[in-house]
Amino acid sequence: MSKRQQTPLQKKFYDVIFGTETTAGQAFDIALIIVILASVVIIMLDSVISLSAQYGSLFLQLEWLFTILFTLEYSIRIWCAPNRRAYAKSTYGIIDLLAVLPTYVALLIPQTSPLLIIRLLRILRIFRVLRLLSLLREANHLAAALQRSARKIFVFFAMMMILTTLFGCLVYVAEGGNNGFENIPRSIYWAIVTITTVGYGDVVPQTSMGRAIASVGMLVGYAVIAVPTGIVTAELTVSQQAREDRETRQSRNCSNCANVETDRDAHYCRTCGTALPKPGHEPE
Amino acid sequence: MSKRQQTPLQKKFYDVIFGTETTAGQAFDIALIIVILASVVIIMLDSVISLSAQYGSLFLQLEWLFTILFTLEYSIRIWCAPNRRAYAKSTYGIIDLLAVLPTYVALLIPQTSPLLIIRLLRILRIFRVLRLLSLLREANHLAAALQRSARKIFVFFAMMMILTTLFGCLVYVAEGGNNGFENIPRSIYWAIVTITTVGYGDVVPQTSMGRAIASVGMLVGYAVIAVPTGIVTAELTVSQQAREDRETRQSRNCSNCANVETDRDAHYCRTCGTALPKPGHEPE
Amino acid sequence: MSKRQQTPLQKKFYDVIFGTETTAGQAFDIALIIVILASVVIIMLDSVISLSAQYGSLFLQLEWLFTILFTLEYSIRIWCAPNRRAYAKSTYGIIDLLAVLPTYVALLIPQTSPLLIIRLLRILRIFRVLRLLSLLREANHLAAALQRSARKIFVFFAMMMILTTLFGCLVYVAEGGNNGFENIPRSIYWAIVTITTVGYGDVVPQTSMGRAIASVGMLVGYAVIAVPTGIVTAELTVSQQAREDRETRQSRNCSNCANVETDRDAHYCRTCGTALPKPGHEPE
Amino acid sequence: MSKRQQTPLQKKFYDVIFGTETTAGQAFDIALIIVILASVVIIMLDSVISLSAQYGSLFLQLEWLFTILFTLEYSIRIWCAPNRRAYAKSTYGIIDLLAVLPTYVALLIPQTSPLLIIRLLRILRIFRVLRLLSLLREANHLAAALQRSARKIFVFFAMMMILTTLFGCLVYVAEGGNNGFENIPRSIYWAIVTITTVGYGDVVPQTSMGRAIASVGMLVGYAVIAVPTGIVTAELTVSQQAREDRETRQSRNCSNCANVETDRDAHYCRTCGTALPKPGHEPE
Repeated sequence: MSKRQQTPLQKKFYDVIFGTETTAGQAFDIALIIVILASVVIIMLDSVISLSAQYGSLFLQLEWLFTILFTLEYSIRIWCAPNRRAYAKSTYGIIDLLAVLPTYVALLIPQTSPLLIIRLLRILRIFRVLRLLSLLREANHLAAALQRSARKIFVFFAMMMILTTLFGCLVYVAEGGNNGFENIPRSIYWAIVTITTVGYGDVVPQTSMGRAIASVGMLVGYAVIAVPTGIVTAELTVSQQAREDRETRQSRNCSNCANVETDRDAHYCRTCGTALPKPGHEPE
Repeated sequence: MSKRQQTPLQKKFYDVIFGTETTAGQAFDIALIIVILASVVIIMLDSVISLSAQYGSLFLQLEWLFTILFTLEYSIRIWCAPNRRAYAKSTYGIIDLLAVLPTYVALLIPQTSPLLIIRLLRILRIFRVLRLLSLLREANHLAAALQRSARKIFVFFAMMMILTTLFGCLVYVAEGGNNGFENIPRSIYWAIVTITTVGYGDVVPQTSMGRAIASVGMLVGYAVIAVPTGIVTAELTVSQQAREDRETRQSRNCSNCANVETDRDAHYCRTCGTALPKPGHEPE
Repeated sequence: MSKRQQTPLQKKFYDVIFGTETTAGQAFDIALIIVILASVVIIMLDSVISLSAQYGSLFLQLEWLFTILFTLEYSIRIWCAPNRRAYAKSTYGIIDLLAVLPTYVALLIPQTSPLLIIRLLRILRIFRVLRLLSLLREANHLAAALQRSARKIFVFFAMMMILTTLFGCLVYVAEGGNNGFENIPRSIYWAIVTITTVGYGDVVPQTSMGRAIASVGMLVGYAVIAVPTGIVTAELTVSQQAREDRETRQSRNCSNCANVETDRDAHYCRTCGTALPKPGHEPE
Repeated sequence: MSKRQQTPLQKKFYDVIFGTETTAGQAFDIALIIVILASVVIIMLDSVISLSAQYGSLFLQLEWLFTILFTLEYSIRIWCAPNRRAYAKSTYGIIDLLAVLPTYVALLIPQTSPLLIIRLLRILRIFRVLRLLSLLREANHLAAALQRSARKIFVFFAMMMILTTLFGCLVYVAEGGNNGFENIPRSIYWAIVTITTVGYGDVVPQTSMGRAIASVGMLVGYAVIAVPTGIVTAELTVSQQAREDRETRQSRNCSNCANVETDRDAHYCRTCGTALPKPGHEPE
């Protein structure tokens, strides 16, 4: 991407706002997290009628305060970004924009106030902090495992879809369209509620036949959870095993012959019998 | 199986309808998927009274359109199949037939219209697409793991059966046949709902004794899930580990002696000390 | 144990009733399973008022038929057992006795009829068949894994106990003893229902505070399931890995020197360079 | 820490109260456990109105008995502890104090009686016994695994937070603030109840849209459980594998050359061909 030349001031701001190395940068990130969480909490509380009736005006003021802060931040980000277009188009850039836009739109066009809910996307900005806590590595590790097993998981979901459809229809027929199984979509909704072991109990089979089918569905759903778990776990275990292996085994050179010993437990060179140096301490 | 000689035209159709290599074949598969899903959705929506009252006739027309399409497809499959009998007898052949038959039967014998639900088996035809998305390998991988641990899983289900029976009876006795525990089958239904952690709440113990027993049942059911998960995961992990191993370790020939080095970390031949070629990049 | 001399006839019966090698023995086991399941089903159906009102007499007759059959079987087992005392004292011996006793007792002392429920222990006799299906090996494999991790699981349950107690008390305080949280035992019952993700919904926090605490409890319970699963899975994976390893690697003797090659991927003896015989085919 | 010189008597008491080696020490621990559990059970039963009305006075007497016992124990612990300050400040020291304080406080300031609930922290003293049962090793093993994957688990919880927030808001919008989705916090509560598969059913989506979103949420929550499970399991498996490995492979010295053989399956020394001693018996 075309990288515009930054002025020293822009560079300075850039390091603080986008960077995490400098103390200032970290302080900024922490402050940002606090403001984001605060604004999200306010939005939530504002949705509680009793509270909004009492503190409505306060909430409004705070909301505007946060909006102004975010607006400032956004414009500074745009200003000091080495590549403005790239930032504006990036996922974060869009989220940053969505964090401020709704408030203004709602101000201009009052009837769009329902859109204010969009502001909650601000919570996605939290992800920035993961970078700070250097938790990204963990997140990536998980993401990688999930990605590697994506196709398996897709197959699993296809399986679930068909499973729930079939069970939903079976009970739909068994219950004869009564007791909340008025139609197939709802029956499938029930099947999903059941097979995922959520079990609201808002729709429940009443006939013996329906109960029998439901029981089978539950047992299946109860066991089927093993599949995604197995998939992800296998991925994580194997990759971790590999990492562990690389860590544990370190090759030691025999001081006498050219042989390379990689077996931690060997005490002597396996070709010339010379005593080997002690292996490094084992992680664990 | 006796393989009849196909005419060039039949061969052509065969490649499109049964095959996935040609672009035409893939296009056909995708089109088929769309039609199948559309028809399934229509059947579902048709079961919603409000919708069927409004769009009933439209749904009927669409249903006939789909039926005719599937009939055409089925007859072409029969016509161009290298071994007709084999195809007609195959699972897919039967599913393809069940996809069209009910509509005709319901037309001739109106009182069989409840059978129309059978049309939903069309969804099973989706599995054809897995082949297209070459997801079959993943599916088979899972299937293999499940199959290898089939006997273990059977034991697990037998265990569950006995567990639910015992807990069902215990609470049946504790509740004295009241509070929805009128009889043993229903108590067992409750036990299944509970031990699988579905917990509808439609039948719930009311007595302290019943609650105590239920609590034990829940804890057991909560922990027991570990068993099928463990079984499947172990299978997947081990098989994956094996695959990984085969990938990672590649033997390198020593340029000097006939020794074969399989240890990725070795830098020198372990017999003559000649420097070994760098190992290939490790998958991750 | 003192082994009494069996007469040829006793030996013959013994092989049929206790053994599984002979065809007769297997036929007997299968027949036994059918009778056991049938009797259990009858007991269950008999507990359904509507059915017992209609077919009560039939059920009674069948029950007596089964009882007589089991009595016969039991006396024959006693008669032909090489060590009668040992059999009578064995778990199976007691279960076999409990399978017949209640019916007689209920006949003599009618007011003990509630004890008839004990007859359901007959279901435990099913375990005999596992032996037949040679599923015992799988069962033992699971049992071994569970046993090896018994102490870990005990710790887990102790953890759960304390967890549920604390959450129960917290919500008890938060709800101020209302909304079904009348007392601590019931609050703990709720905590168990919640943390095991059963979630009946019969007792539910009503206050914001209670809901907040409950939410934490759910997330904890949702994640905690990972612990028993992890324990059992680790056991199963490791033991299976070990078994797999033993299977895969087979040592091959170098035809030239005394060296033993265990590495499947080696093509030449690592000491003298003589070509090695191809390794046996790899399982999986 | 500055270790004060103990008198022989103090040493004696110390071994009994703090130690587990001596028979007396173990007897004391067991007795302590019984008293703790008894006192906890009494507190729970006392919270049941019906029981407290009937046995209130008895409960009170027992409570005082326990309190005095614990007071005695605490003072002795203080008295014979080699480093009093250290003990008093330790977690156990504080728990021991909290076990007795509330009763006295409630006696002096009656209106603080609600604080009596704090006495239930006595249950935490149970952990002392784990030491006795030498279950601490297992507990530590689990704790270590959890600790090693702490950051991953943190990421997982952050993920859950954002997931529940988004689903909560989606359904809040879909249901238009009706059917129990009055405000966002409650909607998030519902999302947690749903995604953790607890599924009380106290708040349930009524609109088709809401149900559709909920279904997706359930499937996600159902699959997401795989993540924490995978994390913990991977940790446990790998660490166990490592331990197993250390156990299984034991190096054997060749009686002829200085070579060390670590491969269990090798029959001859890989350098001089001398027959090797049989490897020790393999665990499992």
